[in-house]
Amino acid sequence: MGTAATQDVQAKEAKSNDSEVKNVIFLIGDGMGVSYTSAYRYLKDNPSTPVAEKTEFDKYLVGQQMTYPEDPGQNVTDSASAATAMSAGVKTYNAAIGVDNDKSEVKTVLEAAKEKGKATGLVATSEITHATPASFGAHDENRKNMNSIADDYYKELINGKHKIDVLLGGGKSNFERPDANLPEAFKKDGYSYVTNKQQLLKDKNEQVLGLFAPGGLPKMMDRTEDTPSLEVMTKSAVERLNKDKDGFFLMIEGSQVDWAGHDNDIVSAMSEMEDFEKAYKAAIEFAKKDKNTLVIATADHSTGGYSIGADGIYNWFGEPIKAAKRTPDFMANEIAKGADVEQTLKKYIDQTKVALTNEEIQSVKDAAQKKQVTDIDNAIENIFNKRSHTGWTTGGHTGEDVPVYAFGPNKERFAGQVDNTDHAEIIFDLLADEKRK
Amino acid sequence: MGTAATQDVQAKEAKSNDSEVKNVIFLIGDGMGVSYTSAYRYLKDNPSTPVAEKTEFDKYLVGQQMTYPEDPGQNVTDSASAATAMSAGVKTYNAAIGVDNDKSEVKTVLEAAKEKGKATGLVATSEITHATPASFGAHDENRKNMNSIADDYYKELINGKHKIDVLLGGGKSNFERPDANLPEAFKKDGYSYVTNKQQLLKDKNEQVLGLFAPGGLPKMMDRTEDTPSLEVMTKSAVERLNKDKDGFFLMIEGSQVDWAGHDNDIVSAMSEMEDFEKAYKAAIEFAKKDKNTLVIATADHSTGGYSIGADGIYNWFGEPIKAAKRTPDFMANEIAKGADVEQTLKKYIDQTKVALTNEEIQSVKDAAQKKQVTDIDNAIENIFNKRSHTGWTTGGHTGEDVPVYAFGPNKERFAGQVDNTDHAEIIFDLLADEKRK
Repeated sequence: MGTAATQDVQAKEAKSNDSEVKNVIFLIGDGMGVSYTSAYRYLKDNPSTPVAEKTEFDKYLVGQQMTYPEDPGQNVTDSASAATAMSAGVKTYNAAIGVDNDKSEVKTVLEAAKEKGKATGLVATSEITHATPASFGAHDENRKNMNSIADDYYKELINGKHKIDVLLGGGKSNFERPDANLPEAFKKDGYSYVTNKQQLLKDKNEQVLGLFAPGGLPKMMDRTEDTPSLEVMTKSAVERLNKDKDGFFLMIEGSQVDWAGHDNDIVSAMSEMEDFEKAYKAAIEFAKKDKNTLVIATADHSTGGYSIGADGIYNWFGEPIKAAKRTPDFMANEIAKGADVEQTLKKYIDQTKVALTNEEIQSVKDAAQKKQVTDIDNAIENIFNKRSHTGWTTGGHTGEDVPVYAFGPNKERFAGQVDNTDHAEIIFDLLADEKRK
Repeated sequence: MGTAATQDVQAKEAKSNDSEVKNVIFLIGDGMGVSYTSAYRYLKDNPSTPVAEKTEFDKYLVGQQMTYPEDPGQNVTDSASAATAMSAGVKTYNAAIGVDNDKSEVKTVLEAAKEKGKATGLVATSEITHATPASFGAHDENRKNMNSIADDYYKELINGKHKIDVLLGGGKSNFERPDANLPEAFKKDGYSYVTNKQQLLKDKNEQVLGLFAPGGLPKMMDRTEDTPSLEVMTKSAVERLNKDKDGFFLMIEGSQVDWAGHDNDIVSAMSEMEDFEKAYKAAIEFAKKDKNTLVIATADHSTGGYSIGADGIYNWFGEPIKAAKRTPDFMANEIAKGADVEQTLKKYIDQTKVALTNEEIQSVKDAAQKKQVTDIDNAIENIFNKRSHTGWTTGGHTGEDVPVYAFGPNKERFAGQVDNTDHAEIIFDLLADEKRK
């Protein structure tokens, strides 16, 4: 301490902390517990250096948050309750979408931002009506009501305006329905409607509905050129929202880290982490240039009871995971459709990195006899779990604290041990404190 | 912000941050990963309030640390390598006690403190020669050499003085040996030697060797009045060390959180957490009064792949765990020695909290047929694991990041994502920066 250069840096940091928050980007890695963020560092490690390279997340860790719900029957949260806590500052029951325990609607930070005249957006790799984004942009007593949630996105107005300006994700089937054509309705109100990456990139409208799959998007490893990555959607959303002189609120979810965790699929868990990390990096880079953008990243809970190391082994190997060219799901589906087991495995698992044993191939052949995709999928996942020494204890969620990352003005308010409701409370505060333009 | 009271608090905090570090208390919860600290909050929760009560740890969370070793064959750490990283700032191989990969001795923060004329201490519930304390106070190519480590504690001098002034823990058999009587030698050099709680409390000597069991101490739940708790040892150590006008360095280990994790024993894991929390609280309370004491608490790694929730269940229950009056180990030993299974279980498991089913009792009876304590122990542990919905993936360690807590001057230097080696580097820095008295 004490050099002129250091003092200069400190002065700049102090200035950045004091500057006003105009934009908030809130990123949620669904299911991204500490074992996921830690394992991802192991995976990306350069083995030729003795010290682990930090991930994009590591640079901005500020603490951890508690995730428990206020549910009469369960004390481990689901994504709806956790997202409602983060969006509205209210602990509620599992499955609740922006409603309290008495099912009354609770105002979300997205809505508060819109009330202040800001642009708003939701981006996810799940259906855009799925629990996490829904809890920021809608109100429903049950997360299952994804059609109603899509209706809510369209119908609910704030100060005579649509509540959400940018909606990018999956879930076309919840918008294009026999009983409703929501994309047409959005278009009549001035929104663009895009359904593939090329259309998304070409369109520059400030209001856009982008639905890139009937349900959830394909996982990163299984995407074709038509499907945008979470990073591409993030950049497109930020570009549009940033045109609003009043600023914006944007929620971005890496939805399928959790889905991979439920499936106990370490290959997809790690590649979905990468998809999410790239989106996070894009958000940080925007915030670095902008100076008035606060970026928060966290998880809603952890999933799968995933451990780095298992069965007494003091190692966790990323190499077998990197050998996969497609997800186990994809391979299992090919095999279930009649593809040869050995050929499929050898086509999609790099044999220079992982030379499959006869026993491994046989285990998938045995599973294929049962004709169930799930059995084949589990057998393929098991190869990667065993080779990487990945442990799992559940197909559901777990209750441990999750990491919190923050960058930009007022980031220090998210530091230490926080509760998931604190995020909303701080953002409401920041919105209330903001000077009138 | 802005009230006079708030400004006053801020001014005081700023002053505290600027004040010099005279004493350092470094606490290690061995194996205390994020699932342990989170579960402990679940366990202590008051069910009549909707919000979880924060633990003593929660109040001072500043970030997380990476735990990986630099070992040619393993990338998940053991306690020796992790403790050497934290004590000396050097990544090394698993089993290394204060030595680098080339087996050369590396200076520890305890030694640096002694060089500065400070008093020093080691406190643990394991043998005081076990991997974690040993890596602060000794140098050995292998953690197994606990006799040599005891010799090192006695023989190695710094500036003509014994390196460690206060040694409290277990491991009498490593000091009282056919080939050596180290307690006698310590006594000749002016140390007190105490072997039970009453002697410890009565003695006020600044230098003390306290050994309260042949090996590790009994677990908190199984202790008699003769065995000091970690809190009692901590207070006794601080009282003695604080007499040194030059300040002190003290390492305190909650050693058996890890042992319980290896055993997949949730009952003991939680009670050992409580033992550690009380010691941590005593350290914080001392630091609050002292103003010049920095307290760091962290873990060396996590253990057992422990998850809050398992097998698809979205609940984790503390009540069954609280029903245990003694550890499963203790109950298993009683049964192995011939005690009746049903009577033993009902004696030591509060039947008003957990009414054991016939199936549960039978599972222990079946295990007892095998005459192996381990089988009986596992059967009893399984009752608690199932009822609490505790998951485990391994009998070994796991590689995820662990929490870091800090209180006192310069606490902010430990904030964010740190590496285990950073602790030593920061403490070396603080010792070097300290003004000469």
